[in-house]
Amino acid sequence: MHIGFVSMRSEFDFITNIKKKFDLQYVGDDCAVLPKDAKTDLLITADLLVQDVDFRLGWISPEYLGHKALAVSLSDIAAMGGTPLHAMLSIGVPAGLWRTDFIDRFYEGWHALAREFDVELVGGDVSRADACVIDSIVMGEATRSRAFRRTGARPGDVIYVSGTLGGSAAGLKLLEAGHSEDALIHRHLAPLPRLSLAASLSGLNFVTSMIDVSDGFAADLAHICRASDVGAIVYAGLLPVDEHVVGLFGDEEALELALHGGEDYELVFTCGPEFAAPLESLPVTRVGKITAESGTMGLTRNNQTTMLPSRGFRHF
Amino acid sequence: MHIGFVSMRSEFDFITNIKKKFDLQYVGDDCAVLPKDAKTDLLITADLLVQDVDFRLGWISPEYLGHKALAVSLSDIAAMGGTPLHAMLSIGVPAGLWRTDFIDRFYEGWHALAREFDVELVGGDVSRADACVIDSIVMGEATRSRAFRRTGARPGDVIYVSGTLGGSAAGLKLLEAGHSEDALIHRHLAPLPRLSLAASLSGLNFVTSMIDVSDGFAADLAHICRASDVGAIVYAGLLPVDEHVVGLFGDEEALELALHGGEDYELVFTCGPEFAAPLESLPVTRVGKITAESGTMGLTRNNQTTMLPSRGFRHF
Repeated sequence: MHIGFVSMRSEFDFITNIKKKFDLQYVGDDCAVLPKDAKTDLLITADLLVQDVDFRLGWISPEYLGHKALAVSLSDIAAMGGTPLHAMLSIGVPAGLWRTDFIDRFYEGWHALAREFDVELVGGDVSRADACVIDSIVMGEATRSRAFRRTGARPGDVIYVSGTLGGSAAGLKLLEAGHSEDALIHRHLAPLPRLSLAASLSGLNFVTSMIDVSDGFAADLAHICRASDVGAIVYAGLLPVDEHVVGLFGDEEALELALHGGEDYELVFTCGPEFAAPLESLPVTRVGKITAESGTMGLTRNNQTTMLPSRGFRHF
Repeated sequence: MHIGFVSMRSEFDFITNIKKKFDLQYVGDDCAVLPKDAKTDLLITADLLVQDVDFRLGWISPEYLGHKALAVSLSDIAAMGGTPLHAMLSIGVPAGLWRTDFIDRFYEGWHALAREFDVELVGGDVSRADACVIDSIVMGEATRSRAFRRTGARPGDVIYVSGTLGGSAAGLKLLEAGHSEDALIHRHLAPLPRLSLAASLSGLNFVTSMIDVSDGFAADLAHICRASDVGAIVYAGLLPVDEHVVGLFGDEEALELALHGGEDYELVFTCGPEFAAPLESLPVTRVGKITAESGTMGLTRNNQTTMLPSRGFRHF
């Protein structure tokens, strides 16, 4: 299957199109990478969270929403191997919600996570809106020319993923089914960005590409494949499917959630096959390999390989 | 009258409160000012524009909306005496609008203005939303420690304003009355940021404070007074009220629009009274003076001084 074939223009097609049309050299990774000084690049990312599209106020507390808004942007900094430093928040709030303690609790949750990673709020905007909307902006740094990109994967590279997969999407399913207490729900509502792993990896110059799992493992791996003009084979038996998800939903559905569920905020990266040793002490699992078959992803399971579609979360 | 006395917590009170509560040293000016290198500070600003709060799709073309989204953030860079360099756009779009040419025309309008000031789009986010929402983020630079702040106005300083006042609010009134063609409407829909004036002023080390007119002249001057712990006297007869507004609405209403209408995107700044000469070649008008009466603004008209309320645009 060719990655990204859709009948209606997706947001990814749109971004690819304006990147070409307006010759935008910095667009296309998890963060923009701008020259700061001789030793350092500036990283910057923005994530828009819209009520009833990205979150439901009935399911997430204001504190968790503040946490999550920051976490998703910190994860983008992690995906580039960077260190976060400063942040901004633009927030639109309905007048009724403004009169409650929502906004105070939101900022409490945001700051609790910010303190953990020494991130300082430096600005933003506050507006009235009919639905709650949050634009989370984080700025960070990486060693000059050493930020990890989506473009460097080469045929023969090994694919790694951190932690476990499927937990966040399973948590969302539990919320949809009316549950409110479960470790998976906590994982969905309050993801932890992989910044400490990113710091360990940033010292390793053999990592060829990296991305974080926001749209879904297969969809995000497809972003790497498309940017690097390569393909991939994933081994189902190697995938670190969340054990609790397997227990609740069974093998088949758990695999589906691990492959296509979004918002795990784990890191997916590639490196040459000769570099396994330094990775052994890290919380990462080898799950597949990069191939020369550009635009094609396969899933190997019980010695049979089938096409792996990249379907992940799409807004349009 | 004491500036900022309101029954419900305004967004300004909220920002003042979190600034204190979380000890946020960079919050409070038009842009955050972050150290970049030995010679340069990085400026960054974000402006959230929400459909039916900040704009109406029936009144503004997609191209003008793109222009305006960038212009308001460029004006924040101008207010600090900076030079814009990079920008990001986070945009939420209803599915119905996504299927039209809205988004393409929006980016056309955005880029037409960006090209004029050599600003490059480096990132952002695209999301589905029930109403259109845009977060416009612009990054720029200023000479280290020389960005203009709101905090430096001193008693005895002279107050200047650039260009003319009242045009944008008058344009909005015309739109509300069902008109669609007028120079004032154009001014409201497609404001031009005062970057070239800001560049001229940035070389003048006697400017003590600056802000742009977004909430309204009196409201924005009140921001300077509050930040600098001073008061102000404004001379009604000196205000550069837009002539076309006087012609259409008469003296009284034109003065009201000049004082309290928002979105003129002119610059208001203060400097010592001895520095008038270098300003004579610039498109600025002396309109008042800073006093030691902290928190009090007066309007002098026909030799009578009355309290000048700071009422400008407030979201809450």
